[in-house]
Parts: sequence; structure tokens; C-alpha cells
Amino acid sequence: MKKSLIALAVLAASGAAMAQSSVTLYGVVDTGLTYSKGAESVYGLTHVGGNTNSRLGFRGVEDLGNGLKATFNLEAGMGVDDGTDYFTGSGMAFRRTSTVGLEGGFGSVRLGRMLTSSYLAASRYDAFGDTGIGGSLAWHSQTGYQARTQNAVSYTSPNLSGFKIGAEYGFGEQVKARDSRYFGLGATYDNGPLSFGAGYDRANNIGSDDLTTWHLGGAYNFGVAKLLAFYKQTKYKDVFVGGSEKFKTFGLGVTAPVGAAGEVKASYNHYKVSDDGGKANQVSLGYVHNLSKRTALYGTYSYIKNKDGLALQLNGAMAGAGLKNGKQHGLQAGIRHAF
Amino acid sequence: MKKSLIALAVLAASGAAMAQSSVTLYGVVDTGLTYSKGAESVYGLTHVGGNTNSRLGFRGVEDLGNGLKATFNLEAGMGVDDGTDYFTGSGMAFRRTSTVGLEGGFGSVRLGRMLTSSYLAASRYDAFGDTGIGGSLAWHSQTGYQARTQNAVSYTSPNLSGFKIGAEYGFGEQVKARDSRYFGLGATYDNGPLSFGAGYDRANNIGSDDLTTWHLGGAYNFGVAKLLAFYKQTKYKDVFVGGSEKFKTFGLGVTAPVGAAGEVKASYNHYKVSDDGGKANQVSLGYVHNLSKRTALYGTYSYIKNKDGLALQLNGAMAGAGLKNGKQHGLQAGIRHAF
Amino acid sequence: MKKSLIALAVLAASGAAMAQSSVTLYGVVDTGLTYSKGAESVYGLTHVGGNTNSRLGFRGVEDLGNGLKATFNLEAGMGVDDGTDYFTGSGMAFRRTSTVGLEGGFGSVRLGRMLTSSYLAASRYDAFGDTGIGGSLAWHSQTGYQARTQNAVSYTSPNLSGFKIGAEYGFGEQVKARDSRYFGLGATYDNGPLSFGAGYDRANNIGSDDLTTWHLGGAYNFGVAKLLAFYKQTKYKDVFVGGSEKFKTFGLGVTAPVGAAGEVKASYNHYKVSDDGGKANQVSLGYVHNLSKRTALYGTYSYIKNKDGLALQLNGAMAGAGLKNGKQHGLQAGIRHAF
Repeated sequence: MKKSLIALAVLAASGAAMAQSSVTLYGVVDTGLTYSKGAESVYGLTHVGGNTNSRLGFRGVEDLGNGLKATFNLEAGMGVDDGTDYFTGSGMAFRRTSTVGLEGGFGSVRLGRMLTSSYLAASRYDAFGDTGIGGSLAWHSQTGYQARTQNAVSYTSPNLSGFKIGAEYGFGEQVKARDSRYFGLGATYDNGPLSFGAGYDRANNIGSDDLTTWHLGGAYNFGVAKLLAFYKQTKYKDVFVGGSEKFKTFGLGVTAPVGAAGEVKASYNHYKVSDDGGKANQVSLGYVHNLSKRTALYGTYSYIKNKDGLALQLNGAMAGAGLKNGKQHGLQAGIRHAF
Repeated sequence: MKKSLIALAVLAASGAAMAQSSVTLYGVVDTGLTYSKGAESVYGLTHVGGNTNSRLGFRGVEDLGNGLKATFNLEAGMGVDDGTDYFTGSGMAFRRTSTVGLEGGFGSVRLGRMLTSSYLAASRYDAFGDTGIGGSLAWHSQTGYQARTQNAVSYTSPNLSGFKIGAEYGFGEQVKARDSRYFGLGATYDNGPLSFGAGYDRANNIGSDDLTTWHLGGAYNFGVAKLLAFYKQTKYKDVFVGGSEKFKTFGLGVTAPVGAAGEVKASYNHYKVSDDGGKANQVSLGYVHNLSKRTALYGTYSYIKNKDGLALQLNGAMAGAGLKNGKQHGLQAGIRHAF
Repeated sequence: MKKSLIALAVLAASGAAMAQSSVTLYGVVDTGLTYSKGAESVYGLTHVGGNTNSRLGFRGVEDLGNGLKATFNLEAGMGVDDGTDYFTGSGMAFRRTSTVGLEGGFGSVRLGRMLTSSYLAASRYDAFGDTGIGGSLAWHSQTGYQARTQNAVSYTSPNLSGFKIGAEYGFGEQVKARDSRYFGLGATYDNGPLSFGAGYDRANNIGSDDLTTWHLGGAYNFGVAKLLAFYKQTKYKDVFVGGSEKFKTFGLGVTAPVGAAGEVKASYNHYKVSDDGGKANQVSLGYVHNLSKRTALYGTYSYIKNKDGLALQLNGAMAGAGLKNGKQHGLQAGIRHAF
């Protein structure tokens, strides 16, 4: 028999039994065509993902009684275009998420590698969800910012009338404790159409810099459309030479349902580096057509224009496209399937 | 549905529900003893596979209604002898197959990395299925030919009275669009005991060469035995220096059931490189004993003799065996288990 | 419940059918805090595991009839702290176990990569199960000893009135057959509270050495406590320069249940290198608190003191901690969750 995997849980008649023991295999496969035009025009298949970043994961929950649960999550990211892990460039590692923890009335505590509460609290106000060619560059690896921490302890509070907070401490695992250390906090408030979030984090020795970030955002869902806005500021302090500079992003977005199955998205991002380090503006426009809850077709256009020496490229731009007079255009059309 | 390991049994009440959502974990573990004798005699365990190449995969289908389905497939190859991926030499990557797509009345469209339609149309006429020590070298990596393409769009037609066609276009993802680009076509006809297939493909810049291949084959199943034959020709054109040469293969094979659970296989391959580049002859003999539909024991012997400077080695020959006066013997005995 | 994923059709009502075909996804996620104090004090998250080494695996059994079964097992190890495989340092490979085999009345035969029978027969008398900061260093990679072999054939006998034997032969897969070759034997006896085990193995060319090992151990469970003892000796013979030395370990341990869910463990290890190569003593103390059959919290303290030039570090010590006057302290507190 080839059809092979089953949640044990499922087998039992009772929901209690289901809670007691389940392992879930899940994932997202998302790719399509990407066209990047800067100094050169390059076509190809989307690597990380256009609508939702591709992934394969295993997660489970065990009910320990008295409201206590044990949880785990192992999640790898792979480019569907060539089958390799987009973190390692080769074999699949659990570099998206790798955690074990406990959860109960007190909230949840997890150990391992995870997206930070600080990142999660603010990045959700990017209309493109920090994904694909239209995504904001506020949190992009080009800027040195890291959305994940590892060797870390994470705490997430329970939902208190819409408020949640979370914090991570990432051990540097160095002889000098401050090297590579991470600390961050995130707080969110969700109440019907209204949503706020703010985060603060400090990451030591990313390259030769200490990065200190604060960011906040909010959204309001009017029904016909949802408006989103955020501001992010990261300070880079050179730990060897001294001196520092700041990278600031201001983002505005809107998403709106179209018919029963469609959604349009648009966003504007303004980037600025302190002390005349340059600035850039990005506009993005996208459409998502849901074929089901799990599967969607999408198309996105984005355009960035750098000034005064800044040289940001769009998220997921094809290698070799580069910039032409500081400008780059990007187009993505693809399919996202979740399982 | 995001929670995905689903008890088919659970769905078993309705075929429709079953079709709506299933994720399958599947694989093949195949290894055994390999003995190679050329300049040296080397013994060891089979790495890639003797009867069917080892693999671990995840695949799924979602019914989107109106005859439309979303599909995905992620498949890695690992050597059971040491647990490593035989593409990366280390961690597991989805280098056998990595696709997401849609299928319906129009056929199927898939994006990602996959075996090419051209390869599939012709390689099935090797009595050893292009696998193990007895497999033909027509499509072997020694020849530079690549059975897979990536960063690719694939189309497969529906079955039209036994006819099917398929095509792939692999984006080079280079500044100069022709670099590393792939295009290929395959067509097959299957009608009861009769089967034909033909393929054409062009792969740019494999090393410094453009490879242009055409190949065709056919088979007829007489019941007591099935006869198979194919011809393949690849032209290697040096894109820098100019000039070209051709690698030609002619293959003949027979398979025959023995008793209720057995099958014997034999094949002859003739290889020739144009302009006095040498030639070689290979004969292979094998027996497969099925313990069940999923599990088999097998034994294979193969012998290759090169002339005039050609230096082909058997598929899956132990490293270090080499050739003695252009000759190599190979023996494999192993177990194949599919799950 | 440990068996988490079940073959679908399998569920179909009959136990016999269930036996016919099952694939199980299973694993262990184990991490926590590790503190190492030697020349430096270093804090961080446990990588390989503190109570049980972390892993993700797939295994299955197929009933072939007449008491014969086909089996397979693919198992990778990953550090939960950063999501990478602790064998490759990157993507997940099946380096813990990778086997396919047959089992029946004759015992079981497996091909691939596996823990050796020799190792398994003796290492089980370490009260800490050769795991975590408190584990014995008798079989540690620091000593060059390898608990696994690959390119190997393994045989395990059926249980004969409590007696079992196992043997592995690992092909060197080299032109000169003795290079990298492995051969080993293990025998165990288990009868109620009483348990014995002994192993012998020879591994050629680990680095420049041939390693010949014999080790034996025993345990008796008095109910209120279980006593364990073992002795191991490995001889390292330099195959190029000649000459040899021995590494000897003597270990004593005790484990005792505490209440309904707890267990205390303590062990003493004495290490000695022949010809005045130095010696060391290690004491370990641990407590395990089971939250369920699958999930436990644990704490372990260990201390090692080297003399006369030996420089052993504790198992899983944080990188950079080093030794201070030959001494190192280690503390681990963590969670282990099996699925």
C-alpha cells in the first residue's frame, strides 16, 4: 500500500483521544514565474515562494493532563524550483522552525530555533506578508536583520482580552556571553477589525554590528478593505570601529476582497539610511485568486527606485538582474498549494 | 485542510472526500551487494539502488472541483548503504522530484524539477529500467546527459487513445537566456501489448557543450516474453571551441515471467562515439524474485567491453574498480522494498 | 503512543491487515540548557540531546507470509537548538540508521548503516545510556570509537531463552579490502532482573589506527534500585608507524525509581590510557521526571577530572569551555519529548 500516513488521532472516535497524540505532516509548495528587470532582464522560477514561502514540516501536541501540553515543531524550507533547502542551499534542515516546549494556562515556553516575537508582532503589517517580489524589505536579509533566533528560549503569553506578548532570549553560546546573543520582545493586540503590534530586539554581532530594532504597526479592517501601516528602525553599531547608522522603513498597505475568491493587495514602502546613506521607494500591486482554502493562483508586480547610493533589490529578485539607475522591476505569477 | 495526515480509512465512506485531500508518504529502499571487477576487484553495498533507485517522497492531490486538481510531489534519493542523499552526498534534498501543479481535462502542468518527458519516453525500453549494474549507459551521467530539468515548466497531455505527449521548458535563469536552458519533448503510444516512445531534447551549456538528443524505442509483449529495443543519439557541440561529436546507443532487451513470482531480464547495448571516438558492447542478465508486490530479491550480472579508447564503466560500479583492457564485470544481489 | 503514523488501508478492520503494511513516522526532540565550566564558562542550548538523542525517523514492516517480514528504517539526528543534522552539520541525512532487511524465525538480516551489536551489547550498562552530559565517554567520538558501521550487513538472532547475538560486517569498499573494514559481535542475556552483555569489534583504519575493542557489562534490578557495571578496552594500533596504546574504561552506575514518575541516576567512570597516557575520573548525577510515557523533564550534573596529560571533556560540553587544571563541570536541564 502506497498511501501511508495517518494521524493516529483520527483513528479514535473521541476528540480527547485526538488531543492526546497527533503528529501532523504539513507544508506549502509555492512557485511560479519570476521576471526581474534591472541592468539585465532575467526570467526563471520562483525559489523561496511568491505568496507563501515553501516549507515541509512535522508538528505535534501531547496532552499531559491538567491543562498541560507538550509540543514540538520541525519545519524546513525548500525551493520547489530545484528541490533544495533555501537555508542550506542543499539538504533539508529544520531552519525555519525547530522547537520543543510546554504550553498551558501560563502560555507557552519553547526551546530551539524560531521566528522571533518581535518580528512577528510588526511584520504582519506588510500587506504582502514579508513574502514574494512585493514584500517589504524592512526585515530582508539584505539589511542584515534576522527574523529568527536559535539556541533560544521563547515565551508566549496566553491571549488576555486580545493582548499577547512574547519574548525570546538566544544564547550566544560563546565564551564571551554577549557575542551572538539575542534578546527581543513583541506585543500584539487584536480586537475584531482592529489590530496593533510592536516589537523591540537586540542582536549582538551580526557580522561586526550590534543591531537594535524597534518597529510597530497597526491595521483596521473596514470590510471592503483593510488598511495597514508600520514603521521600523534598526540601528547598526559597529562593535569594533565604533560609529553607527540607522535603516528606517515606513510602510503602507491595503488589501481588499474581490468577489468570492479574490483579493487585491497594494503597498508602498519608503526606506531611508541615516547620514545621507541613501533612500528608496517601493510600490507593489498584487492579486490572489483562491481555488480553494489550500490552493491559490497569484500575480504580483513591484518596482523599487533607489537614490543617493542605496542599492536595495526586490525580495526574491532573480540573480544577476541588478539595478539600472537604481531601479528594478519585478513580476511574479505563480501557484501556492498548502497541505 | 491544513492538518494533513489523514486516515484514508476515515474518509473511506466517500470516494469524493478521499479525493479531496490526501498526502502520501512513500519510498523505496533498495540495496545489496555489488561486486565490480576491472583493474581492481571491489566489494561493497549498493548505493543508489540495484532494482529500483532508493527514494523517500511526499505527494498529494487536492480536488478543486470541476475536474481540476492541485498536485505536489517532493522526492529525495538516498543511498541505504550510508544514509546520505545520492545527489547532494549529504543531507536529503528533493532532487529527484520537486513540483507543484494543476491537472484536469487539459492534462497536467507542473512547475519545478522533474524527469523530462523526453527521457521518460525512451528510457523505458531499457529492460533494466536504466537502473542498477545492468542498466543501459545511454542516459548515464558519464555521458553528460541529464534525465532531469529544473526551474522548469512541464506539460503532460491526457491519454488520447493510447497517445500521450509531454514537454518541458527549463529556464536557464541566466543573464543570457540561452545559458543552461533546456527544452524537450516526448511522445508515447501504448496499446495492449504494443508500446512506442520517442523523445527529443536540447540542453544548453552542460559543461561547455550544447547537447541535442533524440531517441526512440518500442516494445511488444508476447506474453511468454516481452521484447524491447531503442536507439539514442546525443550530439555534443562545444559552444566555445566549436566542433561536435555524437554518442550513439543501440539497445535490445527481453524480459520474461518465470513461474508466479519470477522474472528474467537480458539486454545488449552497443555504444559508439563518432569520428573514431571508440565503441563498447555491454551484456546484462538479471533475475527478480517477487516476495510480494512491494518486496523483491534480485540478482544481476553485467559485462562491458570498450574498444578504441572509449572508457565507459557499468552503472553503479564500485569506486576504484576501473577497467582492465577496457573491460569491467559487475555483479549485484539485493533486496528492494517499496512502501 | 509511540507509533504515530499508520498506513491507511491498514485500518481496514483486521489486525492481520494492519500487520501487512505499516509505515511509522517517529522521533525524539530533546533539548534544554547546558552549562559547561572549564577554563571558561559557557551557557547554551543542548544540541544532540540531554536525556535521549534527538531524531526523526521512518520505519515500516511488511508481512510477506510464512513468518517472513520485510523491514526498513531511515533515521536522522537533528539538534533542536538550531535545526541542523548533528552528523552533517547541515541537512538531514539518515546517518543514525538506514536499513532494509528481512526478519523471520531465523532472526533478522539488515543491510545499510546501523548501531553495531557490539556497541549495543555493552553501552546499555551506562546508567546515562551513553547520552547527555552525564554519559560515559567510553564510546565517545573523542576516543575515535564508532558506535555505527555502514556499507554493512547485520545479523541479529532470535531471542533464545533470553540469549541474543548479533554481528555486523562493514565493507570497506576500498581497492584494498581491509581498509575501513569493520567486523563486530555482540551477545546479550536478559532474564527478569538479571542482564549481561558482551561485545567485540575491530575497525580498520579509523584515522591511521586499527581499533580492536572488547567490552562487557551486567546489571541487576533489585526493584528499589538497579545496579550496573561495565568494562571496556580499545586497543589503537598505528597501521603506518606501528606501536599501539589502550584506552580502558570502568563504569559503575545505579538507577532508582522515586515516586510514581521520577528516577534518580548516578554513575562513576574511570578512564585510563596505557603507558602513562593519563587517566581521568568522572562522576554524574541525574534526575528524570516523567510527565507522561513520552515526555520527561530532566536535570544532570557531571564532573570530570583528568590527570597526567589526558584531556577528556564531558559529552556534549559547550564548545570553548575547555578544561581548568584538567577539570570540567557540566550541568544540563531540559525536556525530552518522543512522538
